[in-house]
Amino acid sequence: MKKLFIASTSTVHGKAYLEYILPELAHFFSGTKEILFVPFARPNGISFDEYTQIARESFEKIHISVKGIHEYRNMVDAVNNAEGIFTGGGNTFLLVKELYEQKLISAIKNVVENGVPYFGTSAGSNIAGLTMQTTNDMPIVYPPSFNTFGFINFNINPHYLDPNPDSTHMGETRETRIHEFHTLNAIPVLGLREGSWLLGERNKVTLKGPLMARLFQKGKPPLELPPETDFSFLTYV
Amino acid sequence: MKKLFIASTSTVHGKAYLEYILPELAHFFSGTKEILFVPFARPNGISFDEYTQIARESFEKIHISVKGIHEYRNMVDAVNNAEGIFTGGGNTFLLVKELYEQKLISAIKNVVENGVPYFGTSAGSNIAGLTMQTTNDMPIVYPPSFNTFGFINFNINPHYLDPNPDSTHMGETRETRIHEFHTLNAIPVLGLREGSWLLGERNKVTLKGPLMARLFQKGKPPLELPPETDFSFLTYV
Repeated sequence: MKKLFIASTSTVHGKAYLEYILPELAHFFSGTKEILFVPFARPNGISFDEYTQIARESFEKIHISVKGIHEYRNMVDAVNNAEGIFTGGGNTFLLVKELYEQKLISAIKNVVENGVPYFGTSAGSNIAGLTMQTTNDMPIVYPPSFNTFGFINFNINPHYLDPNPDSTHMGETRETRIHEFHTLNAIPVLGLREGSWLLGERNKVTLKGPLMARLFQKGKPPLELPPETDFSFLTYV
Repeated sequence: MKKLFIASTSTVHGKAYLEYILPELAHFFSGTKEILFVPFARPNGISFDEYTQIARESFEKIHISVKGIHEYRNMVDAVNNAEGIFTGGGNTFLLVKELYEQKLISAIKNVVENGVPYFGTSAGSNIAGLTMQTTNDMPIVYPPSFNTFGFINFNINPHYLDPNPDSTHMGETRETRIHEFHTLNAIPVLGLREGSWLLGERNKVTLKGPLMARLFQKGKPPLELPPETDFSFLTYV
């Protein structure tokens, strides 16, 4: 009975860190006094301590304390004792490499599959999918595998960006990149726009927030899906 | 005595494939009757044959014939017999995986270091650097390594894109991504804007085209460098 909160972004334009979802997070983590923060993705290269402090200041507003996973000598024990887990955004390659090196992929997967609430933003949401292959990040380090938690039956493209019709830039659009992924892979990909999140409860995964999301499936035209869409219909095996 | 033509993009807005550099390519490949095309990056998932045909039609205009490397039973022999090599753009992960699987990294490196002219666009330029870690592409397949040809003493970021001051998008800018690379790596990175290319001749690598390029070095502010800049001063070891 997984409990998931998978957000495209931590921050929307003009608001503070996590501000746009703070009431929903209070509800999602209700009853939880402390969460374990995974700072490995290090946005802009900040330290684990600096990053944990940013998360801590936001969660203080909803009376939840935050501990960084790097503060523990035994990180697997920390996961096994966690009331809730939050993985922040940054660089997905760095995040996944560190998770493998610390033997945390299976540890986190295990507790989340047993009901510990999991919250991710951006890179932390990307790894909730089957693989990290639809990340937008640069491969700044070489992880031992691209396979990730697979809490959901598809992949996420966070910060999904529609093509700009006025652009003269010839680099690939996001949609082209995802199409290239589907020439070689069959995993469905959900493009989550900034301001959208997925809520997973009682084995249902539902689109939340004010925006549509764009679903890409191999060999099919993309679909625009409205808030409250239930993604149980995705039956990729 | 390497001969290199490393272009940010194959195509600039409003022009046909390779059109903006065709006169320079005629000069670069002067005396060459046939070049070997590496179509592995498969932009938008097109086939090796389709991609080779696109390259062939452009090079016909300057009276150079094009053979796809996939047309040869023994690709290493094809490289060893090539008069010139062209690696087209597309997905860098796919390109690098295929080059390793076909044992072509060392084969191509060897002939280019012995004077066979090498032309790359986009992904084909990215791999001229020391590693593919500053690609913009999605990791749609898992290559055995991120190390690439290292024809030049630094890395390339092709299709370099300046931040859009009007954007409300919270995904990382290109500059932020390269900064994240430099928190963990010391290799200099040259952001090549669309319309720029590097010309390598007589152990000098020079910026060509009408635009400035942006050089990122670990721990230093970025530099804007004008056309005709000679990159010999980059002494990364």
